[in-house]
Amino acid sequence: MPTISLKGKNMPESPIRKLVPYAENAKKKGIEVFHLNIGQPDIKTPEVALNAIKNNTIKVLEYSRSEGSETYRQKIANYYEKYNIHVSATDIIVTTGGSEALLFAIGSITDPGDEIIIPEPFYANYNGFSTASSVSIVPVISKIENNFALPPISEFEKLITPKTKAILICNPNNPTGYLYSREEIEKLAEIVKKHDLFLIADEVYREFVYDNVQHQSVLNNFGLDNHAIIIDSVSKRYSMCGARIGCIVSKNKEVISTALKFAQARLSPPTFAQIASEAALETPQSYFNEVTVEYKKRRDILIEELSKIEGVKVANPRGAFYCVVELPVDNADKFAQWLLEDFNLNNQTVMVAPAAGFYSTKGIGTKQVRIAYVLKKEDLIRSVEILKAALIKYNA
Amino acid sequence: MPTISLKGKNMPESPIRKLVPYAENAKKKGIEVFHLNIGQPDIKTPEVALNAIKNNTIKVLEYSRSEGSETYRQKIANYYEKYNIHVSATDIIVTTGGSEALLFAIGSITDPGDEIIIPEPFYANYNGFSTASSVSIVPVISKIENNFALPPISEFEKLITPKTKAILICNPNNPTGYLYSREEIEKLAEIVKKHDLFLIADEVYREFVYDNVQHQSVLNNFGLDNHAIIIDSVSKRYSMCGARIGCIVSKNKEVISTALKFAQARLSPPTFAQIASEAALETPQSYFNEVTVEYKKRRDILIEELSKIEGVKVANPRGAFYCVVELPVDNADKFAQWLLEDFNLNNQTVMVAPAAGFYSTKGIGTKQVRIAYVLKKEDLIRSVEILKAALIKYNA
Ligand SMILES: Cc1ncc(COP(=O)(O)O)c(C=O)c1O
Ligand SMILES: Cc1ncc(COP(=O)(O)O)c(C=O)c1O
Repeated sequence: MPTISLKGKNMPESPIRKLVPYAENAKKKGIEVFHLNIGQPDIKTPEVALNAIKNNTIKVLEYSRSEGSETYRQKIANYYEKYNIHVSATDIIVTTGGSEALLFAIGSITDPGDEIIIPEPFYANYNGFSTASSVSIVPVISKIENNFALPPISEFEKLITPKTKAILICNPNNPTGYLYSREEIEKLAEIVKKHDLFLIADEVYREFVYDNVQHQSVLNNFGLDNHAIIIDSVSKRYSMCGARIGCIVSKNKEVISTALKFAQARLSPPTFAQIASEAALETPQSYFNEVTVEYKKRRDILIEELSKIEGVKVANPRGAFYCVVELPVDNADKFAQWLLEDFNLNNQTVMVAPAAGFYSTKGIGTKQVRIAYVLKKEDLIRSVEILKAALIKYNA
Repeated sequence: MPTISLKGKNMPESPIRKLVPYAENAKKKGIEVFHLNIGQPDIKTPEVALNAIKNNTIKVLEYSRSEGSETYRQKIANYYEKYNIHVSATDIIVTTGGSEALLFAIGSITDPGDEIIIPEPFYANYNGFSTASSVSIVPVISKIENNFALPPISEFEKLITPKTKAILICNPNNPTGYLYSREEIEKLAEIVKKHDLFLIADEVYREFVYDNVQHQSVLNNFGLDNHAIIIDSVSKRYSMCGARIGCIVSKNKEVISTALKFAQARLSPPTFAQIASEAALETPQSYFNEVTVEYKKRRDILIEELSKIEGVKVANPRGAFYCVVELPVDNADKFAQWLLEDFNLNNQTVMVAPAAGFYSTKGIGTKQVRIAYVLKKEDLIRSVEILKAALIKYNA
């Protein structure tokens, strides 16, 4: 029998995956499961995007250009102008989701054995993309006690080796909800310039920022034209995760021309999804205002309710729609499984994502879970009630 | 300035890419260019697929399952039954085009530095996917004189090393149009079993078979359940290249569970395209009959007309919609550029793909071009007229 590669064996599984059968079983037993575990928003996709699909007049569904259609990339560039990100269509490659943008970015700048420094906890699939490129993630720990702020710059410098190719941040952060300040990006800018590294910023949650704080993009005037690579996506912005459209953006011509070769190999991004994404750019501002108000409300109520539970530690998220919560349990993995397997409150329970999967250092974050506030307010309130009752029973 | 990786630098460019500016220039000068260079069919996408998109009632465009929707995979399994390929939904992972299926297959079975044996000339993007996985392609030469049949099995055995992980064939073949016989697949089956290798078969042109010969799939009763991996795609089958849906199929559970981890990392294949692809399975048989008749007609006329040109060698393609032609020129790269830059016949010219890009051995195939017969009959006839006149002028 032929053998799977070491890399194939090392590909990490999704940290939630092993809980899925337990959730399915709970549902079979008639238990309602509130899904706090995934980043799939319940928000409606803008009509303007859905209508563009319904009204398309395609007769032959052809490949599009590998870099994405000319008009769409031009419109993306216009969109960025609003955020003081000055780029042109030629600085952009349309990708199949932010996921593919990450794969192209890592592929363009690393060889097998190279290293990328990432503040942990981090979006778990960074592990998968790194493994696929045979690259090591070198984590630098951010702590719940500090609200998951960036660790001191000296912590980064300690980790830089000749194999280090980039620092990767996610801003606003999944899973912590942390929003990096201007000063933090400035410090990172200094370090990547000093050590000739790339700074990859996953900004797919750019619009999900609360408390009237301004989002800082790595292409906002930090002098990083040669260093910065933005990862972007329509998935969360327009609640169109199933479209599979994102992009990679850089003013560094070599990065774009290299990523383009990856894009050419896979021919083109999906055509229907590009049509929807181009139309989505016409979404009225009122849509975003409503969404932001809705998420802010959800965040406020979630954090307020969680804070009332004895022994629960929670960092205050200022962006995205996740937070990391430390629970008074022996082990969050076990607890999450127990919630689905052995617990219900009036036939209801919750599914959370154990946070250990978001850390690459073994043995930390084992009491933490990530909660996505992608449910409506009443369901969030009920979910926290369930969690509270569960903690009492679990620890009894 | 941070540096692009060696791998990034080594990513090959599409062999046609460098001709694109010349084609654009020709068009600017008012010259009509017949595109014999690309595998983008002019055939209409089945209405049943396009209508499914127009009539969709999605409100929230959610991620689908990473492995593709349950119903779609079940229907794909049913489709395979018709071809005596006995698989179930769990043997299938839906991918973003055959392109992603190739990436997942190579990713699952190789580590950096491993080798894959491929008969050349081969689909040029195998180079890109291999480079992206830091894997080497070891070519085994098939020759125009033998109609591009599989080289003797002894040629393969000479190339097998401890690093060899798979043999990859494309059947029917792009670029040669060659269709492997039952005996050829049997020989390959023997060798992969003897040496514990995978046999990856890119069967995206399965339906494009002429002359009433039967297509032989690697999952047709060759005893390859543990060894065979099929790469498939809706792109050509339903003329829906822009959808970006394909799949990877294997009875080897370890292959599928490993590929699934790659699929999970990128979250899901595109939802709209899956809807269209699922509906496309209802395409009436009459559609395929018409398409086959049309392509057969095109092939016959193309080969007939080409054979009349003095000094032109052409292998007879029995599947797909490409053929490789040897021209009486010093260098096909130069000639292809000259066709666009310096030649026209009554303001018309042709664009062909120089075949050197389909070889990995340097210095062979330099007088060959790939011609895709994706144009209607009259245009093909005219294209060959142009080619003939061009050859006379070029060699004068
Ligand atoms: C931080 C982050 N980056 C990238 C992605 C990838 O999303 P997509 O491929 O849908 O654009 C996600 C999805 O959850 C995410 O949370
Ligand atoms: C032999 C072969 N395999 C795979 C592909 C990839 O096609 P897609 O990604 O559109 O399915 C192509 C496209 O031309 C091809 O010719």
